[in-house]
Amino acid sequence: MTRPRIGVTLGDPAGIGPEIVLKSFSRPERLPAARYILFASPGVLEAEGAALGIELSFGPAVFEGGEEGRLELRPLENPRPGVTRGMPSAEAGRLSFLYFETAVAAARAKELDAVVTAPISKTSWALAGLKWRGHTEYLDSLFPGAVMAFWSERLKVALLSHHIPLREALDLVREDVLIRFFLRLRDCLGKTGLRDAEFLLAGLNPHAGEGGVLGEEETREILPAAAMARRAGVNISDPIPPDVVFRRALDRPNTVVVALHHDQGLIAFKLLAFESGVNISLGLPFVRTSPDHGTAFDIAGRNEADPASLIAALRLARRLSAAAL
Amino acid sequence: MTRPRIGVTLGDPAGIGPEIVLKSFSRPERLPAARYILFASPGVLEAEGAALGIELSFGPAVFEGGEEGRLELRPLENPRPGVTRGMPSAEAGRLSFLYFETAVAAARAKELDAVVTAPISKTSWALAGLKWRGHTEYLDSLFPGAVMAFWSERLKVALLSHHIPLREALDLVREDVLIRFFLRLRDCLGKTGLRDAEFLLAGLNPHAGEGGVLGEEETREILPAAAMARRAGVNISDPIPPDVVFRRALDRPNTVVVALHHDQGLIAFKLLAFESGVNISLGLPFVRTSPDHGTAFDIAGRNEADPASLIAALRLARRLSAAAL
Repeated sequence: MTRPRIGVTLGDPAGIGPEIVLKSFSRPERLPAARYILFASPGVLEAEGAALGIELSFGPAVFEGGEEGRLELRPLENPRPGVTRGMPSAEAGRLSFLYFETAVAAARAKELDAVVTAPISKTSWALAGLKWRGHTEYLDSLFPGAVMAFWSERLKVALLSHHIPLREALDLVREDVLIRFFLRLRDCLGKTGLRDAEFLLAGLNPHAGEGGVLGEEETREILPAAAMARRAGVNISDPIPPDVVFRRALDRPNTVVVALHHDQGLIAFKLLAFESGVNISLGLPFVRTSPDHGTAFDIAGRNEADPASLIAALRLARRLSAAAL
Repeated sequence: MTRPRIGVTLGDPAGIGPEIVLKSFSRPERLPAARYILFASPGVLEAEGAALGIELSFGPAVFEGGEEGRLELRPLENPRPGVTRGMPSAEAGRLSFLYFETAVAAARAKELDAVVTAPISKTSWALAGLKWRGHTEYLDSLFPGAVMAFWSERLKVALLSHHIPLREALDLVREDVLIRFFLRLRDCLGKTGLRDAEFLLAGLNPHAGEGGVLGEEETREILPAAAMARRAGVNISDPIPPDVVFRRALDRPNTVVVALHHDQGLIAFKLLAFESGVNISLGLPFVRTSPDHGTAFDIAGRNEADPASLIAALRLARRLSAAAL
């Protein structure tokens, strides 16, 4: 049986990435069977493993349900001494970018079906002189129009826009932009396990504008866009008051909330799915997921990091890439 | 012992207001002792009571913990036949405004320490030709600068602005407006049981602007306002990323999140406190609370309405007005 090939990047060597990667793969019986390839510096993995008392063995491994798979290492360069745990640095930025860039290149070359990324530090990337703010911006530069979404058991959210000022996000709430987004979202999800998704659309203004009294975007831009998308076969609602839509979508596994800006979606998502939420990029030529947390420099090196979100990201990557195979 | 005098309005007679009022007062042993005065049409109460099999007795009553108090009726006019359950109407708007206006007038005349309002329909008010959109706007017209806040066991939120378009809400995020609001909020809360509140301030932009890269309001307006308020003795934080601040405030009973617009606060609040959340108006000369839900026309008359949020509103009104006595 063909196993999906899933690249896993180590993230910022000074953060909790190495720890949660080691903890996840130290017990493969908790992971779905796949061919996992770690993109990492062997020296970083070894040092972290020694501190945690975890030694990974590479080669065939037995995964969940006794199924067979593999764990492999793609060894990338070792850091010079100087990466201090818990501190962003140019060196840590350079290395975490190297892991990521190499994994993405492998996925573009069809050597991987999915890439799961441990957290990087935007500060480290800036110190390294990189021009991308983070994973998402790098992927955007290669594959314009990727959709940022957040997945958990209880709630699924897709974002119209993400890392831009709120005022600029409001300027994107235009009929033409929305129609393109709704169609793209439907097409992206068609390639995942969520083919028959129902979209619940958030409004922009309080009470979704209340018929125009509390804002005109709903009547002028959002309602016409939703109607047009429905005529094109997209199963999407009219705008729903932002403080109602998330509750309505809760625990409906086939339902995705379409949020009109970053925090509209993420306030709800992070309250409900802090430990087990997964960030997913839709619309790339491969599956990409990541845990819903950062480098957590404040607890790096203390053996306190919880791998639950990374495990959820690995599990979702496995499920989506198997659906695409 | 002096009991606080708490006015309770019946809300829209076509909604679930009469039902939750009857259910709440049918079991006074679940309510804190007070002198409760219902502002209601006797005929509406009787008809609803007959349908539910609840007959309220007015006069002395035994409340929680065996403490004595009273339940009284301030009889207001009876509706002409024509208020249909589950439907907004001019008549229902006129009556619900009459209950509310009379209770507020009594509170202004110092005959009440608190007013608890069952839900009205904004549509009914508009059909009745009233110029206020709802309770909050009427109170705003009498007492400019009242602060809308939301209270629950797990989370407390105060809103900088409420029923205005999001674009206008952004225009209010100015240093001078913010400073006045922070000082006012501190003063309002000083009169409640929450004298030593800690304010966690939400940012406006994703990641609270990330040092200006994702929006300038934080560095230009919000940070200086927070610093100035701290110098004036307000215990308020710097702006915190909107998708982080609510989680940080969770389960900290002395902490209030300051949200910069309606849905920033209410997306979080309604997800966490749907059944037991209470809406509270701060800065009035009396206490005012209300349940965190609407008229629920879709279930009116079905004996399905849950009085939990009204009971929480009565409980909070009792606690805050006792603190002020």
